[in-house]
Amino acid sequence: MNYYNVVFQPGDVSLEVAEGSTLKEAMNDVGLEFDFLCGGRGTCGKCRVKISKGLTTPVIREQEMLQVKEVDEGIRLACLTTVHNDLIVELPNQKKLAHNILIASEERAFQIAPQLHKVFIEVDKPSRETQSSDWRRLKEGLVKQGYKDHELESTVSILRQMPDVLRGANNLITAVMYESTVAGIEAQDSTKTMLGMAFDIGTTTIVGYLLDLYSGKELSVVSTLNPQTTFGADVISRLTFANHEENGLIKLQSAVVEAINKLIVEAAQKASILRNQIYGISIAGNTCMHHIFLGINPQSIAVSPYVPALSEPLVLDASELNISINQAGKVFMLPNIAGFVGADTVAVLLATELDRSEDIKLVIDIGTNGEIALGSKEKMVACSAAAGPAFEGAQISSGMRGAVGAIDHVYYRDKLEYSVIGGEKPLGVCGSALLDTVAGLVELGILNKRGKFLEFEQLTNPVAQRFKENLIQYEGQGAFLLAEADSTGHGRPIMITQSDIRELQMAKGAMAAGVRVLMETYGIQAQDINEVLLAGAFGNYLTPHSACVIGLIPLELESKIKMIGNAAGTGSKLALLSSGEFRRARDIANVVKFVELGSYPRFNSIFGECTYFNIK
Amino acid sequence: MNYYNVVFQPGDVSLEVAEGSTLKEAMNDVGLEFDFLCGGRGTCGKCRVKISKGLTTPVIREQEMLQVKEVDEGIRLACLTTVHNDLIVELPNQKKLAHNILIASEERAFQIAPQLHKVFIEVDKPSRETQSSDWRRLKEGLVKQGYKDHELESTVSILRQMPDVLRGANNLITAVMYESTVAGIEAQDSTKTMLGMAFDIGTTTIVGYLLDLYSGKELSVVSTLNPQTTFGADVISRLTFANHEENGLIKLQSAVVEAINKLIVEAAQKASILRNQIYGISIAGNTCMHHIFLGINPQSIAVSPYVPALSEPLVLDASELNISINQAGKVFMLPNIAGFVGADTVAVLLATELDRSEDIKLVIDIGTNGEIALGSKEKMVACSAAAGPAFEGAQISSGMRGAVGAIDHVYYRDKLEYSVIGGEKPLGVCGSALLDTVAGLVELGILNKRGKFLEFEQLTNPVAQRFKENLIQYEGQGAFLLAEADSTGHGRPIMITQSDIRELQMAKGAMAAGVRVLMETYGIQAQDINEVLLAGAFGNYLTPHSACVIGLIPLELESKIKMIGNAAGTGSKLALLSSGEFRRARDIANVVKFVELGSYPRFNSIFGECTYFNIK
Repeated sequence: MNYYNVVFQPGDVSLEVAEGSTLKEAMNDVGLEFDFLCGGRGTCGKCRVKISKGLTTPVIREQEMLQVKEVDEGIRLACLTTVHNDLIVELPNQKKLAHNILIASEERAFQIAPQLHKVFIEVDKPSRETQSSDWRRLKEGLVKQGYKDHELESTVSILRQMPDVLRGANNLITAVMYESTVAGIEAQDSTKTMLGMAFDIGTTTIVGYLLDLYSGKELSVVSTLNPQTTFGADVISRLTFANHEENGLIKLQSAVVEAINKLIVEAAQKASILRNQIYGISIAGNTCMHHIFLGINPQSIAVSPYVPALSEPLVLDASELNISINQAGKVFMLPNIAGFVGADTVAVLLATELDRSEDIKLVIDIGTNGEIALGSKEKMVACSAAAGPAFEGAQISSGMRGAVGAIDHVYYRDKLEYSVIGGEKPLGVCGSALLDTVAGLVELGILNKRGKFLEFEQLTNPVAQRFKENLIQYEGQGAFLLAEADSTGHGRPIMITQSDIRELQMAKGAMAAGVRVLMETYGIQAQDINEVLLAGAFGNYLTPHSACVIGLIPLELESKIKMIGNAAGTGSKLALLSSGEFRRARDIANVVKFVELGSYPRFNSIFGECTYFNIK
Repeated sequence: MNYYNVVFQPGDVSLEVAEGSTLKEAMNDVGLEFDFLCGGRGTCGKCRVKISKGLTTPVIREQEMLQVKEVDEGIRLACLTTVHNDLIVELPNQKKLAHNILIASEERAFQIAPQLHKVFIEVDKPSRETQSSDWRRLKEGLVKQGYKDHELESTVSILRQMPDVLRGANNLITAVMYESTVAGIEAQDSTKTMLGMAFDIGTTTIVGYLLDLYSGKELSVVSTLNPQTTFGADVISRLTFANHEENGLIKLQSAVVEAINKLIVEAAQKASILRNQIYGISIAGNTCMHHIFLGINPQSIAVSPYVPALSEPLVLDASELNISINQAGKVFMLPNIAGFVGADTVAVLLATELDRSEDIKLVIDIGTNGEIALGSKEKMVACSAAAGPAFEGAQISSGMRGAVGAIDHVYYRDKLEYSVIGGEKPLGVCGSALLDTVAGLVELGILNKRGKFLEFEQLTNPVAQRFKENLIQYEGQGAFLLAEADSTGHGRPIMITQSDIRELQMAKGAMAAGVRVLMETYGIQAQDINEVLLAGAFGNYLTPHSACVIGLIPLELESKIKMIGNAAGTGSKLALLSSGEFRRARDIANVVKFVELGSYPRFNSIFGECTYFNIK
């Protein structure tokens, strides 16, 4: 078997690869994580990489999925490209290594200085005369490294391990330190690696990133459905469950802790490390997820004045929370801002550096509860808008989440076209396609400003004529057909009904009203905003133009929109990798001014106006 | 039924007592603890109190057990005296209340400033606009009381209770503080009482004192056999069990933790409080007991160089150690000095104030392992002497512990007389009687300097003739008969054999050699010592003269001997009642110089000499 050298850029990660392996396999081998949306089955066309040296002919499937121009530029799909010679492969810059973290398609540098660090020490041998205890001699070793004797602390579990580790390692040990606390001891010199995991606990999805805390390198990424969804799809139903079901809080907490522990096992297996080597995790999530994870009853969030029980950042023992990392490991909890503006928003602001920005930026994390922040280093305001689950496909007649089988984008060309996640027959429509569909209907004049389907005879735009077939009546209301029954995966038509449009109007109206109120509070107009950053899964998939046409985002900001991916996850990573960033999270939570929409003057009329569409 | 007012002094503790109740019952009702050695059955005559107002005629039993002079002075027995009018009762000063602790028959004052304290705060109501979290508002309340915001910490369990407590108490709460950590929260103002328990974990006995940490008042005293005795009678056998039996350490730890939890329940019941109100416990015990309690393998103590794993003082979470006090409670561990000079010795030094003494004092805690300390505020030295279990009656043919049925004192009068604990027929002989017996035999010239029984014909002292009947041969060796078979509780004779005397010589030789080595190390002679303080149960019961005659303590120090009771328990109390005393414990552990007898030059010959008796 022949082996060839493959170098991944940026980061100069190189390895020898057996002939015929795919680039995906090579990336797995070297621990480079990459989102293969269709699981690497060559159906989604999203795993684009650029071959800058050693270009080979694309396979037929690649030719189908890539534009000719892209093929000429050396773009290939990582799951379909096999290795037959030495290669240099450029990855999209989301995979930058070392201490650069992708955010808003830009890297931002920060000082890697993890909260946890390791110190190798040679402990003095025990002496019959001095009777200096194991712990005393260990402390003396740390004092030689600059620690202050009277500040040094430890825990019972460490003290229990200490005698065996010291004697087993002939007094050569590595201490894992959190500030002046010995959080772990390992035999011999293990200072080369220091592992941690950053988590983003979403209401729907939990994502975990296994990181080398010294290099900043991401060793694996894992995610899972938040198992709490069994008990309720959104924050409000979780709050209700926690407060009214017997042992509701405990059930919710156990579910999320179990999910996180499974992710830890999975991430460790993928990276071929032991979970015992993981000494810290960071947690970002909304206030409700935050409280439930800690086992704190979130009842105060559910009732007026909706305050959190806890907003400050916290460092806790992993064992206290039953997190299965090293038994001496730590859990770093990012702070909350308010009952409905949580640690996930703080993480997004940490990642987007709103607090350091010269320009005024608008940051939107769209979800069931949309969080919106506006500001610059001068000041920041934030609010939460109860959008409801329409953006996630719930409450929509043909709606579904953005999973395999979902129509994710809709194009009004000569005829109606759409793309389906996974490429198979469609099963439903997800939020981004809902936006595309409705935006098209608005632009074609098929919907009026108030969101009502016009009669076909009333349509004035000639292009609208092309979609006559799609305009149907369904159960006594107007509807727009996306896919006939026989072209779908389940034999039922997929459509957007008048009711669905009302749902979307409520959802986008809530978000838009939030943006409007923040601008008023801040004292600016839309044109004063220099950048709109869209965070979260939905924000990353929507078509900016559609979002502006329906009025989710002010129309004049369309060209200023940037997708910034899972910024909450990025913020969680930053807090884990750098004690300075963790401190900054506290500062951000302290300075962001929370704006309570419910008590804002004229909120109802603002909201009413915002449910309208932007008809030019 | 008539009720009368009874006032106990000192402390002005008064209550209404039903006519005919005993003073013992009244003391129980009001929570005054008192040692009723025979269980209050009127047989030991030790529960002497003085009636200073309302004196009544003694019952016949009291007349028998008290001297005429005592009866005239108003001395009565608390278990036999019944109430028929108003009384003022003076208790022996061991029951002083407030911040005086009995030690060496003297009170010593100290500043009550417990490590734990309570603060009543009125927390601001939550506000929809500021969204200030429960924890933030609670901290603001503490800041108003002088705490520093950035130093304030809490634990997950407190944060979990917080929302309910705050809302249930309409934001009026009492915070239980340990330094800047909120260790507990209680509804409303509960600052009046603050409870804790001080423990002394002995190899054989565990004693616990329930204290009001504000007044220093002792609410109840409880004790139990250390259940670890099932796994081994002495420290060495416990070490062996911990190191060589499967789950040995866990079994030993569980046993002691369970015993302590039972004592907590018992103490709480006796004082009619809830164990949830107990926020802290202090622990004194030898190094082995200390390590096992913490679940730290004591293997390093068992093998050369015999160093402890841990010597520093520690403050731990009670929940981490499964101690069933308030779930946010703290455990204060006194420090150790060396592998065989532990936190119990530190507690004794704390109580005896050796570190503040102008005079040179010798402190001896006699047990299976005797700990000896010598010094003053200038310097202190300490050692451990492996006396073996002879003083506790083990390895002695008729030996038993100092329990009901044990002959505890022996008198060479016209004929041999003895006293028995509990007053019934004797079952065996305990350590103090062993000393009395042997000392008498030495003084009568029946034993020679080397501890050998002389032939009856060789005896020159005419008084020795009186005990001819007692000098017997038993299984081929000389022996001294204390009780004929038919006068004992089990129908077997009780005697001291030649082998028993050898055992005693080994035990007292080890202790005496320890004293000798400490004096040599310190550079002084016996006459330079101003006071000899005997701590521990055995030290409290032995006859000083006997101890000196057999050479356990240098003869010239007989008049300087003081019994100081359970000084380790007293030291444990001090550490719990005063953060200054807890700090002083650390200082003591740091400055006491440990002297290792095994490696002391000429130790074997010193030990050999010390096995001899002091024949004038």
